[in-house]
Amino acid sequence: MIARAQAAPAPESRSWWGWGATEKALPEAECAALGTLIPGAATEPLPVPDLRTVELPKVRVRPPAALAPLLSDSPPDRAGHTYGKAYRDIVRALHGDLSPAPDQVAFPRSEQDIADILDWAADAGAAVVPYGAGSSVAGGVEYRGDRHRGVVSLDLSGLDRVLEIDRVSRAARIQAGVLGPHLEAQLRPHGLTLRHFPQSFEFSTLGGWLATRAGGHYATLYTHIDDLVESLRVVTPVGVSESLRVPGSGAGPSPDRLFLGSEGTLGVITEAWLRIQDRPCFKASATVLFDSFPVAIDAVRAIAQSGLNPANCRLLDAGEAALAGVARGGESVLVLGVESAYAPVDERLAELVALACDHGGSRSASSTAGGAEPGAGDGADTAAGTWRSAFLRMPYLRDGLARMSVISETFETACTWDRAGQLYEAVRGRLGEVARRVTGAEAMINCRFTHLYTDGPAPYFTVIVPGRRGAEVAMWDEIKEASMEMLGELGATVTHHHAVGRDHRPGYDRQRPEPFARALRATKQALDPAGILNPGVLVDPAADV
Amino acid sequence: MIARAQAAPAPESRSWWGWGATEKALPEAECAALGTLIPGAATEPLPVPDLRTVELPKVRVRPPAALAPLLSDSPPDRAGHTYGKAYRDIVRALHGDLSPAPDQVAFPRSEQDIADILDWAADAGAAVVPYGAGSSVAGGVEYRGDRHRGVVSLDLSGLDRVLEIDRVSRAARIQAGVLGPHLEAQLRPHGLTLRHFPQSFEFSTLGGWLATRAGGHYATLYTHIDDLVESLRVVTPVGVSESLRVPGSGAGPSPDRLFLGSEGTLGVITEAWLRIQDRPCFKASATVLFDSFPVAIDAVRAIAQSGLNPANCRLLDAGEAALAGVARGGESVLVLGVESAYAPVDERLAELVALACDHGGSRSASSTAGGAEPGAGDGADTAAGTWRSAFLRMPYLRDGLARMSVISETFETACTWDRAGQLYEAVRGRLGEVARRVTGAEAMINCRFTHLYTDGPAPYFTVIVPGRRGAEVAMWDEIKEASMEMLGELGATVTHHHAVGRDHRPGYDRQRPEPFARALRATKQALDPAGILNPGVLVDPAADV
Repeated sequence: MIARAQAAPAPESRSWWGWGATEKALPEAECAALGTLIPGAATEPLPVPDLRTVELPKVRVRPPAALAPLLSDSPPDRAGHTYGKAYRDIVRALHGDLSPAPDQVAFPRSEQDIADILDWAADAGAAVVPYGAGSSVAGGVEYRGDRHRGVVSLDLSGLDRVLEIDRVSRAARIQAGVLGPHLEAQLRPHGLTLRHFPQSFEFSTLGGWLATRAGGHYATLYTHIDDLVESLRVVTPVGVSESLRVPGSGAGPSPDRLFLGSEGTLGVITEAWLRIQDRPCFKASATVLFDSFPVAIDAVRAIAQSGLNPANCRLLDAGEAALAGVARGGESVLVLGVESAYAPVDERLAELVALACDHGGSRSASSTAGGAEPGAGDGADTAAGTWRSAFLRMPYLRDGLARMSVISETFETACTWDRAGQLYEAVRGRLGEVARRVTGAEAMINCRFTHLYTDGPAPYFTVIVPGRRGAEVAMWDEIKEASMEMLGELGATVTHHHAVGRDHRPGYDRQRPEPFARALRATKQALDPAGILNPGVLVDPAADV
Repeated sequence: MIARAQAAPAPESRSWWGWGATEKALPEAECAALGTLIPGAATEPLPVPDLRTVELPKVRVRPPAALAPLLSDSPPDRAGHTYGKAYRDIVRALHGDLSPAPDQVAFPRSEQDIADILDWAADAGAAVVPYGAGSSVAGGVEYRGDRHRGVVSLDLSGLDRVLEIDRVSRAARIQAGVLGPHLEAQLRPHGLTLRHFPQSFEFSTLGGWLATRAGGHYATLYTHIDDLVESLRVVTPVGVSESLRVPGSGAGPSPDRLFLGSEGTLGVITEAWLRIQDRPCFKASATVLFDSFPVAIDAVRAIAQSGLNPANCRLLDAGEAALAGVARGGESVLVLGVESAYAPVDERLAELVALACDHGGSRSASSTAGGAEPGAGDGADTAAGTWRSAFLRMPYLRDGLARMSVISETFETACTWDRAGQLYEAVRGRLGEVARRVTGAEAMINCRFTHLYTDGPAPYFTVIVPGRRGAEVAMWDEIKEASMEMLGELGATVTHHHAVGRDHRPGYDRQRPEPFARALRATKQALDPAGILNPGVLVDPAADV
């Protein structure tokens, strides 16, 4: 294995098959205990395969000597870069299926390394799959197909530095391969923070966030990483694209907006200037309970349209709240958080709570820390703190359920307010039916709103239903396809912040206007003429059409 | 001339040669009086040519009978659609130069009309220049070149309706050809407002705003029309593009962001779903004076980074403040405005004023109405009101100066805070030198900040210097080229909200990353294969390269 840049977190602790850190994976006994809570779950956990015995496909491409020090074909590297972290990825890994493993894993240390690897791959006819930290839940880092003579996973973790800080303009130039905690650790001594905290914060990179338009910490205003971008540097197969670093511009269509969401298909994002924040020292959070979810929807709509712009405003339906341990059951829970680096926020929180209560809610509890910031470190005795802990623990529970052959997956979307109630009912009703038909069991379908706009929410659904061992992936795929169709019918987006990858292609292809698809294909052809970059994501390269 | 849709404002009042309404143009005596204020100005105003005697080029293309009712080749229509409203446009019109006049002006009443006109133009080899209300100050609506067999100006004014209002989601579906006041008039009965008030508000259209990424009312947060867009419909030569109407999405690069700023080169925007607002009933404004512009810059930076997000926050340097009649001279003036539909804003205004005063400002005056909303109707006795009146009167004064052969033009940009002071000094110093060299006279160069970001301001410069009759355009072009070069050297954008058009192409071409240029050219080829849409704007069609 290749040595990583100094001070990067040890990759050895990353699970090759499951979410996050190996040491946080549920022990077998806990998996089994979890299974007993789900009628129809398996009685024995699937064993975690021994990597030494898992079969990997034969290596088909090898780098020239000059590049050899940058690449690895070791089984742990290949296995760890085979999949993202979707439910279907976890299950396939648990079943020992590593058939899509890349032939090589590249660990570039510079933009020149990346350009050299792209050149070599184009010559060798190998696909290149840019890889941040592999937490994609949409099939974004898994090669599928047979049109390339090999596959190279391009791991950006060697580019992990905050290179420059402009304190006056409150911006920083940051390399794309940095993991969330390492990024924040480099800003903290300066009293600064990016404040982008997706659920995957510990196990995802800036470049991954940018390439997938990740959703972050803020429930309002700055919902996506897009909103924090000043400029980007992108290594494309035809040269480096560096946009002008300015706070705003009206000079033609935004170059950055082409690469934001391009998911590694048009180039490799290597660094970005990002707007950063003074660290907030005033924080307050509160929770408000609702007897009815439709009433709660109206309340959060009032908040979203009030101009109060809370940093956190997550609405959990009764099931989600019960699962997270923040409500006894029956109530929907609204977690509100306000923060500022400059002035006390209690008054604004009080206004928010009053607004929620005016719309049918009742005050539950409050604390002086809130939001979804990992490691915020306190408030664990409140509903907000409880929810935050559950939020970060959830993917590990998902893995535990996967080992019990329980299907446990999420999907998320956004729609306008006029459709939000209908969407909630339809997903729970019609998708519940589909899940029953597919699995023969009753599904638990929960929902939370993760981000809010004046014109609509971003609902996030969790589906938990026992599957049949060996058929889990096929079962989930059927449910997933139904969910995408339903979102399309209801005028909701196929993804709000999980990206398209390969798993969302059917819904995305239906949603995307055809002239824009043409534009994207033409752009792909112009920037990646050999069609090597993350093939099959967003568009098919010309050769594949 | 073609009859316009019912209830659209009478186009007869539009000046064919100058800004805005004919009846608001300065009378000759006032032009002459204005000239006496500028040492070196001409002594007699240029006469406004009589349209009946101005020579128009021969009409080269004529529509087939089926389309004939949609098109006009009348001299007033052709003359009125020849230019935008840049200084260089006004001067050429005053000199009776209408050589770039379109052969035909089309007045489509539907998307089908537009598609039919595009089809015909492609067959006829004619260029099509989409035209909202022609207030471009960047050469955005003027055909230049000789590679087409004719030119059709496509006037969207027939598509001027608010088609649908979704009160719950606070959004409206609006046709692109609607003028600002007519748009607001259609929303007002519902208690709603778009709150997009560019200086050209009365004489520009929604489609124009969208196609050029116009800057609007809000000094912070929602600076560009881009931020108010839910979805777009665009008629391209290869079909209609309609994006999904959702509040947010992470499904690939944003389709809307490709067409926002596309300046009529990729398709014709026909309608949009926009986020609208409840009409604010709480408003407050105040002005703060500063003895020094650098000190004022630090103060507005503190405001921009405070999270207080004022609706209005315009900083005028001493010259600009004096010109607008809001300061005796010597002081820089900060105009602050806060507004809300829900709660009193006086406290927030007080916080803003306190912050400005903490940073070296002193309180001047306040009123209960502010901002740049045209027709806000009161506050005229305050500095904020005075500034607003001057803001709306300015283009008419510019025309008066043009008639006295005084060069009077603006350019605007954006840069990060670390460069703002340097940019201000450089433009006033170095550009002053250039103006002196070119004209032999001393230029007045003023500046205001129109929009603010956490990471930088959008400075807006006004240049006033006497020119030589007959050489005004050549002189201005030389100054303009120097300004674009200077902005490039200083890392500032060639335009923050005036668009690229044809006039900013040199600066834009230097600023734009080459891979993005490739992407844009490929997109142009994919969506406009005949290369007929607004040729020469943003990119050159393949045939022109």
